[in-house]
Amino acid sequence: MDIINGVSRFQSTVFPGQQDLFRKLAQDGQRPRTLMISCADSRVVPELITQSAPGELFVCRNAGNIVPPFAMKNGGVSSAVEYAVVALEVSDIVVCGHSDCGAMKAFFNPEALETMPNVKSWLAHSEPAFEVVKSCCGHMNEAEQIQALVLENVSIQLLHLQNHPSVAARMAQGKLALHGWFFDIESGEIRAQGPDGVFHTVSNDKPLPVAIPASRRVARSLAVEAA
Amino acid sequence: MDIINGVSRFQSTVFPGQQDLFRKLAQDGQRPRTLMISCADSRVVPELITQSAPGELFVCRNAGNIVPPFAMKNGGVSSAVEYAVVALEVSDIVVCGHSDCGAMKAFFNPEALETMPNVKSWLAHSEPAFEVVKSCCGHMNEAEQIQALVLENVSIQLLHLQNHPSVAARMAQGKLALHGWFFDIESGEIRAQGPDGVFHTVSNDKPLPVAIPASRRVARSLAVEAA
Amino acid sequence: MDIINGVSRFQSTVFPGQQDLFRKLAQDGQRPRTLMISCADSRVVPELITQSAPGELFVCRNAGNIVPPFAMKNGGVSSAVEYAVVALEVSDIVVCGHSDCGAMKAFFNPEALETMPNVKSWLAHSEPAFEVVKSCCGHMNEAEQIQALVLENVSIQLLHLQNHPSVAARMAQGKLALHGWFFDIESGEIRAQGPDGVFHTVSNDKPLPVAIPASRRVARSLAVEAA
Amino acid sequence: MDIINGVSRFQSTVFPGQQDLFRKLAQDGQRPRTLMISCADSRVVPELITQSAPGELFVCRNAGNIVPPFAMKNGGVSSAVEYAVVALEVSDIVVCGHSDCGAMKAFFNPEALETMPNVKSWLAHSEPAFEVVKSCCGHMNEAEQIQALVLENVSIQLLHLQNHPSVAARMAQGKLALHGWFFDIESGEIRAQGPDGVFHTVSNDKPLPVAIPASRRVARSLAVEAA
Amino acid sequence: MDIINGVSRFQSTVFPGQQDLFRKLAQDGQRPRTLMISCADSRVVPELITQSAPGELFVCRNAGNIVPPFAMKNGGVSSAVEYAVVALEVSDIVVCGHSDCGAMKAFFNPEALETMPNVKSWLAHSEPAFEVVKSCCGHMNEAEQIQALVLENVSIQLLHLQNHPSVAARMAQGKLALHGWFFDIESGEIRAQGPDGVFHTVSNDKPLPVAIPASRRVARSLAVEAA
Amino acid sequence: MDIINGVSRFQSTVFPGQQDLFRKLAQDGQRPRTLMISCADSRVVPELITQSAPGELFVCRNAGNIVPPFAMKNGGVSSAVEYAVVALEVSDIVVCGHSDCGAMKAFFNPEALETMPNVKSWLAHSEPAFEVVKSCCGHMNEAEQIQALVLENVSIQLLHLQNHPSVAARMAQGKLALHGWFFDIESGEIRAQGPDGVFHTVSNDKPLPVAIPASRRVARSLAVEAA
Ligand SMILES: [Zn+2]
Ligand SMILES: [Zn+2]
Ligand SMILES: [Zn+2]
Ligand SMILES: [Zn+2]
Ligand SMILES: [Zn+2]
Ligand SMILES: [Zn+2]
Repeated sequence: MDIINGVSRFQSTVFPGQQDLFRKLAQDGQRPRTLMISCADSRVVPELITQSAPGELFVCRNAGNIVPPFAMKNGGVSSAVEYAVVALEVSDIVVCGHSDCGAMKAFFNPEALETMPNVKSWLAHSEPAFEVVKSCCGHMNEAEQIQALVLENVSIQLLHLQNHPSVAARMAQGKLALHGWFFDIESGEIRAQGPDGVFHTVSNDKPLPVAIPASRRVARSLAVEAA
Repeated sequence: MDIINGVSRFQSTVFPGQQDLFRKLAQDGQRPRTLMISCADSRVVPELITQSAPGELFVCRNAGNIVPPFAMKNGGVSSAVEYAVVALEVSDIVVCGHSDCGAMKAFFNPEALETMPNVKSWLAHSEPAFEVVKSCCGHMNEAEQIQALVLENVSIQLLHLQNHPSVAARMAQGKLALHGWFFDIESGEIRAQGPDGVFHTVSNDKPLPVAIPASRRVARSLAVEAA
Repeated sequence: MDIINGVSRFQSTVFPGQQDLFRKLAQDGQRPRTLMISCADSRVVPELITQSAPGELFVCRNAGNIVPPFAMKNGGVSSAVEYAVVALEVSDIVVCGHSDCGAMKAFFNPEALETMPNVKSWLAHSEPAFEVVKSCCGHMNEAEQIQALVLENVSIQLLHLQNHPSVAARMAQGKLALHGWFFDIESGEIRAQGPDGVFHTVSNDKPLPVAIPASRRVARSLAVEAA
Repeated sequence: MDIINGVSRFQSTVFPGQQDLFRKLAQDGQRPRTLMISCADSRVVPELITQSAPGELFVCRNAGNIVPPFAMKNGGVSSAVEYAVVALEVSDIVVCGHSDCGAMKAFFNPEALETMPNVKSWLAHSEPAFEVVKSCCGHMNEAEQIQALVLENVSIQLLHLQNHPSVAARMAQGKLALHGWFFDIESGEIRAQGPDGVFHTVSNDKPLPVAIPASRRVARSLAVEAA
Repeated sequence: MDIINGVSRFQSTVFPGQQDLFRKLAQDGQRPRTLMISCADSRVVPELITQSAPGELFVCRNAGNIVPPFAMKNGGVSSAVEYAVVALEVSDIVVCGHSDCGAMKAFFNPEALETMPNVKSWLAHSEPAFEVVKSCCGHMNEAEQIQALVLENVSIQLLHLQNHPSVAARMAQGKLALHGWFFDIESGEIRAQGPDGVFHTVSNDKPLPVAIPASRRVARSLAVEAA
Repeated sequence: MDIINGVSRFQSTVFPGQQDLFRKLAQDGQRPRTLMISCADSRVVPELITQSAPGELFVCRNAGNIVPPFAMKNGGVSSAVEYAVVALEVSDIVVCGHSDCGAMKAFFNPEALETMPNVKSWLAHSEPAFEVVKSCCGHMNEAEQIQALVLENVSIQLLHLQNHPSVAARMAQGKLALHGWFFDIESGEIRAQGPDGVFHTVSNDKPLPVAIPASRRVARSLAVEAA
């Protein structure tokens, strides 16, 4: 493993220029504003595509950028979400899918999944997305279906996020926004889901589309009383 | 969220210089040699401290750099491990702990944990490490105990890794090495566990210490036959 | 148990008048168009408040009209949902909460819950609703908070429904609508949630508010392609 | 959904005549004496076949009138049982199976079950009944086997009920009786299991057969002392 | 550990006299007729109290001689039961409790249980027995209550056994009997539960009491047909 | 069941000679120094092969002498381990495999496993051992592979033991040793794993090989400080 060269390069060349930042981070602790949930894929580097410095991005990565629903206690993703929302009080959560995702492609290659029973179980959390594609995308070719699956998968994980008690409470207070992103490896483009469910290209000259913006919710019961 | 500026900066300034790399990665797929399991902490950026380019590091991040033992089907970490070993055939797995880890410090602050039930459940996978510290480190102050816990936690996660069938098989074939690392935020130093269990400072002029090096195992049954 | 009198009355007085209906139902099987998920409470009789005849309403009842998210395999509610959608192809699912719900009131009486550990676990599926009420309804008195919880609970169960693969697929095809209702025991009124999240009184002279109406979804990926 | 007509009919025609009952139920709360666990099937309406008024029957309905054993925390049926016994102190629990039950017939149609994974998992709680039928009913035709399975299934669910701590305690005190019923859709007949395990037709002129009558149990240990 | 002396004594003194038996058992495989489920307690040696030779008793031992109900897949006891019934076709299963059982006494010492979270979870399978004792044995002193708990616990484990599909099928065929035993350490006495639920002293001059004797069951459905 | 003869023989012939021992054990309680985890196989009698008297050996037996990793709460083996370590403070744990083990042979007969779903699930805890054999023992015949599997299985269960918090803490204190044994039914030989992983024949004239001897561990963090 020639990773030792990378480590040495970091220590001799990179760290000295960031020493003050790291010292400050060690003394003051971290205060990231954003939790990014992205794929373990080696080609999708969250800090690179958002140009985030150390201390800016709390990051949870797993195969398929999946967020199991709250009912599954004990999980690593649920814990990262809870820690980010309760302990760090982040204001934004981004779920970021990407092109050519091996986890999503596995749905189209069931034999390969047989040799990976854990991955197969894990992907159960993406099954609603796959069922949607099976039902509605029969007219597409496989590449298009995979792309559709990646996007539907981001959507379903945003749904899952909302049943985490800490997330639900924070959203109702208007202090937390949820984002659904797609990163295209070849073009470097990022698309962000808007409230309409559509994924729009992100560019500097227009506001960032936000799947579920932060907005204080009027209590539903009050509306009833008025009725 | 001013992350949109970062994204724009990536697209306008950074991506153009890496366009060829990304195109190649999109067309050929990823072939990382290493799986890194590290904490979600915003101050620990795996690609930064190993100076890895996109495509080089398969990354799983969660609160506390934890690897549940294999018996827990359905999990995100187990899936990342399985995918890395079976589908990507990585040759090295690094479990990387770090100083000032919020997850490990939570053991010393049980009241705070009550507001984070998922995190509490998740940390059950680090309980053996905490029990060791409780039993053996009574003479240390709290800062030292936390440091000890971080290191013990890395050790127990390496133990967990070894009961994943895919990992066990690959190790027996001599094709997979396991690494236990510690990253010190303030100094930028990395320490790597050696086969003796001790964490040694990594430097360029000596070989990287490896907790469990890759080496083909002589089948235990043969040894018996000879007896 | 004087229930035997009721059974006798049914057989001697009621059944003869419905004999043809029951014979037809026995021979042709059931073809209900609606699944109603309501509370086990003895005061909320689904067939009564909807004036449904035998064969018209597929009914799942449990304490708190709860729908665990899909990740919880093995469950009775998930099975009822799946059977209703896949085998019976119902076109509507109604989640019906009600006033004075003992399950929801239990959140405000934690000591009583200690004697009912199963109920306590089960109510975890309503926790996001309770967290919302705790966060946003501090200015209400307890009766108002309970009412708010009942409504938030209906909303979160509708969220859960949408991550069941069979439901997600059917909704994307535009063949399934989701309804959130509230039944007030004292007044006999029913309120139905509209797409705006507000619960409106149901009356004969205006269309039934529908939380998530049936409408074929434009595939998200297509929208991206056009971008 | 023309259910809105039913709701309107209930409000304009039915409710006015029961207004006093509902007001009383709203103010005094519910005090049902019986918990009925029956199938979600639209043709089996518990309040109809027992001629129960609102407030008289606490009802849990799921596919196959199943009661998972106590070891399965978190479940909806266990919670309904616990709530009925501990909070409402019901004196009778009825498990009611029925003819032409889709859940039981699913055992004889394994392919269909493949499209309903939740139902398949759920039916594991009826497997002992199916194994009995497979072992002992080889001489019957399929219709007879299905009927046998429905009855065996009621028996096994009564067994499951008895390992719920709240039920076991209440039975030992002689304050709770368990009933196993079978409802025949075509004939409207109800058969009730007696202590001998046989299902007898219920009629007005003889006592209701009770599978496990309420009777204070002599402590087993005392018997030993005397020995 | 001076266990090495015991092993040497076995090899030099005991084994030679049983060499033929062991050779036969190695070549023909095991054919035990009985599965005994007893406590891990060092004072309760199943082969000793039944004077069984090697090859005669299939033995499952755990803290509290517990049999979780079938719904708990993955367990060691369920597997031993299944293997004994399906692969070995044993004709008898004995659940054997004993006096002074540490697992049962733990119910009366909740603080000690806090240091043993696994034991606490495991004892959930005995909770129905404890609830019965709490409800019905208030007039006894603690020693009597513990004794009562041991007996009730045996009874509940026999109940659990009956919902294992393999056991249910075999019992219905009349090929499997279930036994509930109590071993008194001080007196060496064994008491066996009869069909009446009472534990009777076992002696050579009367038949062994059997909790649930093997007897082919008349199919319940046939009884209905005749009705 | 002629087991009643054995019981009578025990009571009339054997017990009288051990009456004093049993009385003492009843009055003083048990104080075993060793927990033995062995197979349920009727041919492997722990007390016989170690020549242990009542009171000397705490015994957990299940199909395949398996120890699930700690993450599996609720289990019988984990509870026995915890009780032995925390309540009884044993100094040694022995995991004892054996020749001709039906559980291990089941890996080579997948069809038979289909009729035993619980056993199949249970054996997941031995899968890492099987994967090692599949990967590294292709050159062996099936008998040799089964033998290899038995030994690898003992090794993996020792690994599992070490992630139990109570075991980890006790080992770090230097108060607990772990042993891996193999019992050969035909020859009566016992082989014990040494620290090198090899299984050595046990004999009286040399020290017992110990897989993981008791030795107080120097805290890993101190080693780091010194670095
Ligand atoms: Zn991916
Ligand atoms: Zn950390
Ligand atoms: Zn209610
Ligand atoms: Zn049915
Ligand atoms: Zn015991
Ligand atoms: Zn064995």
